[in-house]
Amino acid sequence: MWRELLPVGRVSGGGWWRHAWTGADAECRDWFRRQAAVRGLAYEVDRNGNQWAWLGGPGTGGAGDAVVTGSHLDSVPGGGAFDGPLGVVSAFAALDELHGRGARPLRPLAVANFADEEGARFGVACVGSRLATGQLDAERARGLRDADGVTLAEAMERAGHDPGALGPDPGRLARVGAFVELHIEQGRRLAAAPGDRPVGVASAIWPHGRWRFDFHGAADHAGTTALADRRDPMLTYATTVLAARKKARLAGALATFGRVAVEPNGVNAIASLVRGWLDSRAPDEETLAAVVAEIERAAAERGARDGVRVTVTRESFTSEVEFDHGLRDRLARLLGGAPALPTGAGHDAGVLSAAVPAAMLYVRNPTGVSHSPAEHAGEDDCAAGVRALADVLEDLACA
Amino acid sequence: MWRELLPVGRVSGGGWWRHAWTGADAECRDWFRRQAAVRGLAYEVDRNGNQWAWLGGPGTGGAGDAVVTGSHLDSVPGGGAFDGPLGVVSAFAALDELHGRGARPLRPLAVANFADEEGARFGVACVGSRLATGQLDAERARGLRDADGVTLAEAMERAGHDPGALGPDPGRLARVGAFVELHIEQGRRLAAAPGDRPVGVASAIWPHGRWRFDFHGAADHAGTTALADRRDPMLTYATTVLAARKKARLAGALATFGRVAVEPNGVNAIASLVRGWLDSRAPDEETLAAVVAEIERAAAERGARDGVRVTVTRESFTSEVEFDHGLRDRLARLLGGAPALPTGAGHDAGVLSAAVPAAMLYVRNPTGVSHSPAEHAGEDDCAAGVRALADVLEDLACA
Repeated sequence: MWRELLPVGRVSGGGWWRHAWTGADAECRDWFRRQAAVRGLAYEVDRNGNQWAWLGGPGTGGAGDAVVTGSHLDSVPGGGAFDGPLGVVSAFAALDELHGRGARPLRPLAVANFADEEGARFGVACVGSRLATGQLDAERARGLRDADGVTLAEAMERAGHDPGALGPDPGRLARVGAFVELHIEQGRRLAAAPGDRPVGVASAIWPHGRWRFDFHGAADHAGTTALADRRDPMLTYATTVLAARKKARLAGALATFGRVAVEPNGVNAIASLVRGWLDSRAPDEETLAAVVAEIERAAAERGARDGVRVTVTRESFTSEVEFDHGLRDRLARLLGGAPALPTGAGHDAGVLSAAVPAAMLYVRNPTGVSHSPAEHAGEDDCAAGVRALADVLEDLACA
Repeated sequence: MWRELLPVGRVSGGGWWRHAWTGADAECRDWFRRQAAVRGLAYEVDRNGNQWAWLGGPGTGGAGDAVVTGSHLDSVPGGGAFDGPLGVVSAFAALDELHGRGARPLRPLAVANFADEEGARFGVACVGSRLATGQLDAERARGLRDADGVTLAEAMERAGHDPGALGPDPGRLARVGAFVELHIEQGRRLAAAPGDRPVGVASAIWPHGRWRFDFHGAADHAGTTALADRRDPMLTYATTVLAARKKARLAGALATFGRVAVEPNGVNAIASLVRGWLDSRAPDEETLAAVVAEIERAAAERGARDGVRVTVTRESFTSEVEFDHGLRDRLARLLGGAPALPTGAGHDAGVLSAAVPAAMLYVRNPTGVSHSPAEHAGEDDCAAGVRALADVLEDLACA
């Protein structure tokens, strides 16, 4: 099952490229459909393009008690093999494990693949789950554009999904009594924790956001303009990058500039505009706000010296997510006191937690590397993840 | 004549985009051909794609005494209207002025448009003049690629020029007794000089070069990777940008990072690779070498702290150009003691000076702004430039 999915979107010698609604994504989605078919699961695509495979059918067992597990199949540019797919593969494998154990579900059970979790193509993460919970407006979603100017609506349509159908899906969510997402840990907390535990339980997702810093200078000739006459936004940007690292370190937060766009971006041209995107996360919202404010202040101060105007736009923000305490504690007990781990990464489970009781299991990641082809979890740990997920599903759906 | 050329490659509300061998460049070249035709000049394109318009024909008046003037019509991305075109328009206008004066050339006179001076598309400047003088290998030129992966050979072929013909052109250059390029000054030296002079004469071109700095880090998730576990090349790049400015300031040189490329360039991804291009120039080669070495040292030191490997590749280098002293002094005397001005900018006249006596006239630029739509010379100063160029051509070709 894993082997069949591995080559999809792989760049020779590099990482995986499975941006939402591309050919690679379509291959992943076909794989999902086939996995449902070979198990005799009822396959559905919801209005927002999320895939579902139901054991027992979505309508049986009474309303509001379905147990759903899954994750996503899309990737960041040049990402790893595990972020997303491990949760979907483990979900199908856990169903197989339950079947092997002879467990008889009393409630509907489903595997889900949420569309466009990474937001790598259209800039907004967790599109499928945000649309379903009403956290993303359908009209805004349809108008999102990729780097080539293609809208999400056009990309969906080309992939055979009707963008006119997008919108909140309260009826579907009302059927779900619990959502459990298994994911490779993005970090080394579990690997560093005592007790050699391959699986942990998510406690919370740090609040996080994206801010676009626009540094407006003046284009000029790099070979002729005296240094004193320049208004070079690259200098202000560079100072801001270093300030972000320092402020985050002092506050125990994270701050990263990983994306830059420069105009005109010529070797012998002083830039007229440098655009840098700040990704920042912190244990609580007050700390996050303070860190971003300090970075903005450092940018403005240096900008005043450089003759560069700095504007800052918050492009996205996600509040802290505390996963459902009852569900989280039940999972931790069930798994023999699995460690509770916070994370800085957003997930569909975090988005869905606004509408349904949600929880997450993390599988140990020895190096902590993520969003890179070097991302890896050991085979034994992945198998332990499947058994843990099967234990959880058995407890939630069969008891 | 000027008005006809102005709209070509203009982006509404922005600068001019006339990259070599694009549609906008072809329009500019058509314009040149028409200017030759309406004046009854003999039109030629040489093996390297440079355009020539001959008064009297290239073969007349004996070998080695032709007087040639001109510049280039291509632009940097979002550049100004004057850098390049002013020299070509003024060349045709100066011929008209000579005609109006009733001056009778005793030697062949030509207007030239050198191909791909800015190097904005394929990364190497003065391609047309470098090929002609043998300073750029034809095979290397053909293999240069633009940002879309298109080679110079492919781009030329699409524009109707045979890339197989590229190569040194000693026979053609041997016909040229003097080359004079008129150009807008890129800087405020003339504007700041005493005596209210609209036109100056070039003394020398600073040595200059382009170095590509590759900062190799490790891709990882911006939301989960602890700061201490990162190998973030953006930090090393930022430190290098600030070091470049400081080292250049201390040495009386220029150093600029105006072009950057980031991989994977995702908002929530720590970069695996940041590529920054350094443009640096100095009054002499020793100073330039020292400045670049200090910037490399600063990059390597910070890289060691960041776990980032830094490699530096010199992509181009041009030695100091001293224009022909006899020609330069003749022009300065002729123009009533016009000021002699050094510059940090490369020009076709600088490249050609290795093969033929070459000189340059600068037209005053009140703000000094260049490579930007704000680049400007006053109408009266442009007219003074045409008269000065006509004086020079009359002296060189008609006396």
